[in-house]
Amino acid sequence: MQRTLKVYLAGEIHSDWRGELATAIERAGVRAELLAPVTDHDASDQCGVRILGEEDKAFWRDHKGAGINAIRTRTLLREADVVVVKFGEHYRQWNAAFDAGFAAALGTPVITLHDDGLSHALKEVDAAAMAVAATVEQVAEILGYVLSE
Amino acid sequence: MQRTLKVYLAGEIHSDWRGELATAIERAGVRAELLAPVTDHDASDQCGVRILGEEDKAFWRDHKGAGINAIRTRTLLREADVVVVKFGEHYRQWNAAFDAGFAAALGTPVITLHDDGLSHALKEVDAAAMAVAATVEQVAEILGYVLSE
Amino acid sequence: MQRTLKVYLAGEIHSDWRGELATAIERAGVRAELLAPVTDHDASDQCGVRILGEEDKAFWRDHKGAGINAIRTRTLLREADVVVVKFGEHYRQWNAAFDAGFAAALGTPVITLHDDGLSHALKEVDAAAMAVAATVEQVAEILGYVLSE
Amino acid sequence: MQRTLKVYLAGEIHSDWRGELATAIERAGVRAELLAPVTDHDASDQCGVRILGEEDKAFWRDHKGAGINAIRTRTLLREADVVVVKFGEHYRQWNAAFDAGFAAALGTPVITLHDDGLSHALKEVDAAAMAVAATVEQVAEILGYVLSE
Amino acid sequence: MQRTLKVYLAGEIHSDWRGELATAIERAGVRAELLAPVTDHDASDQCGVRILGEEDKAFWRDHKGAGINAIRTRTLLREADVVVVKFGEHYRQWNAAFDAGFAAALGTPVITLHDDGLSHALKEVDAAAMAVAATVEQVAEILGYVLSE
Amino acid sequence: MQRTLKVYLAGEIHSDWRGELATAIERAGVRAELLAPVTDHDASDQCGVRILGEEDKAFWRDHKGAGINAIRTRTLLREADVVVVKFGEHYRQWNAAFDAGFAAALGTPVITLHDDGLSHALKEVDAAAMAVAATVEQVAEILGYVLSE
Amino acid sequence: MQRTLKVYLAGEIHSDWRGELATAIERAGVRAELLAPVTDHDASDQCGVRILGEEDKAFWRDHKGAGINAIRTRTLLREADVVVVKFGEHYRQWNAAFDAGFAAALGTPVITLHDDGLSHALKEVDAAAMAVAATVEQVAEILGYVLSE
Amino acid sequence: MQRTLKVYLAGEIHSDWRGELATAIERAGVRAELLAPVTDHDASDQCGVRILGEEDKAFWRDHKGAGINAIRTRTLLREADVVVVKFGEHYRQWNAAFDAGFAAALGTPVITLHDDGLSHALKEVDAAAMAVAATVEQVAEILGYVLSE
Repeated sequence: MQRTLKVYLAGEIHSDWRGELATAIERAGVRAELLAPVTDHDASDQCGVRILGEEDKAFWRDHKGAGINAIRTRTLLREADVVVVKFGEHYRQWNAAFDAGFAAALGTPVITLHDDGLSHALKEVDAAAMAVAATVEQVAEILGYVLSE
Repeated sequence: MQRTLKVYLAGEIHSDWRGELATAIERAGVRAELLAPVTDHDASDQCGVRILGEEDKAFWRDHKGAGINAIRTRTLLREADVVVVKFGEHYRQWNAAFDAGFAAALGTPVITLHDDGLSHALKEVDAAAMAVAATVEQVAEILGYVLSE
Repeated sequence: MQRTLKVYLAGEIHSDWRGELATAIERAGVRAELLAPVTDHDASDQCGVRILGEEDKAFWRDHKGAGINAIRTRTLLREADVVVVKFGEHYRQWNAAFDAGFAAALGTPVITLHDDGLSHALKEVDAAAMAVAATVEQVAEILGYVLSE
Repeated sequence: MQRTLKVYLAGEIHSDWRGELATAIERAGVRAELLAPVTDHDASDQCGVRILGEEDKAFWRDHKGAGINAIRTRTLLREADVVVVKFGEHYRQWNAAFDAGFAAALGTPVITLHDDGLSHALKEVDAAAMAVAATVEQVAEILGYVLSE
Repeated sequence: MQRTLKVYLAGEIHSDWRGELATAIERAGVRAELLAPVTDHDASDQCGVRILGEEDKAFWRDHKGAGINAIRTRTLLREADVVVVKFGEHYRQWNAAFDAGFAAALGTPVITLHDDGLSHALKEVDAAAMAVAATVEQVAEILGYVLSE
Repeated sequence: MQRTLKVYLAGEIHSDWRGELATAIERAGVRAELLAPVTDHDASDQCGVRILGEEDKAFWRDHKGAGINAIRTRTLLREADVVVVKFGEHYRQWNAAFDAGFAAALGTPVITLHDDGLSHALKEVDAAAMAVAATVEQVAEILGYVLSE
Repeated sequence: MQRTLKVYLAGEIHSDWRGELATAIERAGVRAELLAPVTDHDASDQCGVRILGEEDKAFWRDHKGAGINAIRTRTLLREADVVVVKFGEHYRQWNAAFDAGFAAALGTPVITLHDDGLSHALKEVDAAAMAVAATVEQVAEILGYVLSE
Repeated sequence: MQRTLKVYLAGEIHSDWRGELATAIERAGVRAELLAPVTDHDASDQCGVRILGEEDKAFWRDHKGAGINAIRTRTLLREADVVVVKFGEHYRQWNAAFDAGFAAALGTPVITLHDDGLSHALKEVDAAAMAVAATVEQVAEILGYVLSE
């Protein structure tokens, strides 16, 4: 269809899955606008105290940064047509699941992206998703199909 | 105030934090109605195939169970005045974070409950919460305060 | 849990599946309040012209009746915690699918109930459901599980 | 008025009613953007297993495909100014009625399109519609009128 | 069904149609809770200046009263399951049509009540209604039917 | 501000107040996009039967037309930033009040436009408005002010 | 009417206006359930650090307390039929105005309560209110009128 | 990201903080569209009586102006991606807090801007904000970070 899809890419920021997805999408000629949180891990962690001043306690340092990051993520989550949420082996990635829950409550279609080995742990999140993909190529194909004539 | 608060207790089902909270609340005379998912781990995992028939693949076994559990959790999440979300050291607990995101999108007040050691990993979830507690006694005190004359 | 679930029973009115479900639920001691459209087929078809006056054209006769029936079904659909939608072999039952779509847009959990032979035709509706049951006993078990302590 | 109307065309995919409507609209110079599900029946049925991997059971094959198709249909249903729903003699077309119910719950104006012979079976759906048309020319005229200066 | 329907009675306050409807409903044993604006015309017109102090200009006298009356009507409009709107020959009754529009936007079922002679003038309002009645007996019958077992 | 305001002009179609407002707005250089129902009275009254076929009863003739007109008015009411509602001496204009109620329920700012002689009859509608104007020049000035740097 | 009105009393906590209103309401036999924030100023200010642990910085001490208090105020604001907001001469009372804005966005009727001397400063808040009262007796009378038969 | 952020600047109109923020944003190359109320204090105070006619009482003079200003502020508040609310030492600025409450209820991210000396008085408002800034440079940096690649 003659339309650009806004796709928010939530989750994992320590791998380059967003770049790989962008490449796959571009290669396939899919008209998707990819939206994302700030993926520079240090910038994301430090933005609160860097802009609004240092804190003694780690908790408030994180709190300030999380607030600023949420300005971006909430805006994009509300604006997205589709939300892709990537889960990986490392770290706890609770923010990824949080974003999936937020999108589900808004009624925005969710695609989860993870290895099959995580399926049992992600069963509630997957059950709220419209597609469960294992690779970025699958996500690109889904978006391509969704946008086909 | 002359009112019962409906409190949904999301997250961790392998410890007895809900029972401990119930005890603390009862001891303090707090008028809270505690709502919860099914916390019998086996019953929760098996409900899909037990009721709707066996599946060969683990993925669909989980999918069927997650759907049935979601009938309960969605209903209670929408009905709750307050959602308490407990995170622990073990397992990934993505469903806990999913429920927190769902509640946040509904505008329902969230209280997170976890050890300080998890604070960095939970910073986005905590930033969406109205209180971050470390013990069930603190949660009971918060609810008691919220309901005070 | 100490709570009654409001369950709207949409779809097929020419078989006694609602009565069978009521029996199964009662037998299992499930605290569900069953809501339904008017299931007296003639009363349902005639209510418009009986109350508001005869029409020459069948189209307007149906239109008047459908409006009055919608007062009931919309009220109950909005009020229900869960919507069960039954599809059978006979008749087209577009109103059943309409109610399923309406409930899905509201975010209310849907359980579909139909023989496996209808699964391909109902794939879009089933995909929006949280459970797909083949018998009223399964529905009763699901509701019993959802309401378990 | 100086405005393009977004019109989602739900229902029947085995006839060429969308193409005929497009022709009628173009001929009449109506500024409508026509949105539609994927209408290649095989592509639509196979998209789930083609992209996300084969399934042994027909049920899950359909389930995967229906999820991916729903990403498109939900997005377009939410975006449409008007939803036209076509019902025909063949197949059960429960997804058409589902889409009509979804649109009705969103408050989006619905136009149904079907032969008079289906009127009794569609009375609940028609009662929720703002216009009931029998031909694509009528739909084109309605859209032309709606957009007139 | 085992349920009381909340019915807001909007419109005309210079005739006793509400009392007649209450009688008809009671006689028929219908479980409806009838809600209404303040129907004492003088009390309604004077409430603003009587409680909040006199005004020189008629416009502000009316404005103060209308604000106070809206506290009641908005609360009841939002709470009602069904809204009945009565239009008569006398006065302009724009508030009746306003309430009908408000209810329609909320998705609450509307029943209009008026003589056939007003039908052309009320065509837009009637088109948004689920039933168009000419007598209070018809309204009572509709409510009785809606609440039947 | 650097922005075009979408203004829906509801009410009276037998005078040329929309044209006069357009002139006043153009003269003042106000960036407002004026939206309106179909104002050709005959076209509006006849659209139902002209497009969808004749009816014997005046009621259904009106009903068909009102449905088609509502496709336009609902779409524009939902899209408008501001709704101006004009009331005049002639005819009952219940659709104007209906649109005002609909806009009020959506939270869209309403400006009413009428002579002071109608103020008492319109007090409930005026109380829900953000401004009550007596002339199109005042409406144009309000819009100009609202859009000023 | 046979109904209890839930009235949330926002604003000023250093005077006894809530107690005076309660007395006036009781004397007049008005069926209103009065809801309020915690009005023990010290308890309100200290609740955060008392329950969740001390903070070095005043900012975070306040932040913790404000979060806990918001659990109560948000719940009651969403539940109230009417919100009364009291403004006085002393302190800045930005939370009172915040609550008024929150209620206005929800569409809940607001009554402001303040001396005439504050009217200019409160003009935006008053414009969003359905009544502007100067004394608790006036508020009690409004509620009595709103609940009259 | 490739996107312009709509930022509504609420609060204080007697200082030039909006101009300073615009300069800081421009200097940093941030793609933000700044939206604001009418900041010409006299124009804002007089708009009601200037356009709609003089009033004897100050209260109604203010009321008319506040209504017209609300047409602008409500439209922009609903449209904004982010709302910045500035509080200063002078005047009571209840409208600033009102706008913050309104934005919070809509779920729109809020940034408060004020000196640390006001923190205690603003604790409830700050607790609903995603960032609490002390200078316009900090706000510009936050917006720049939010929009970074």
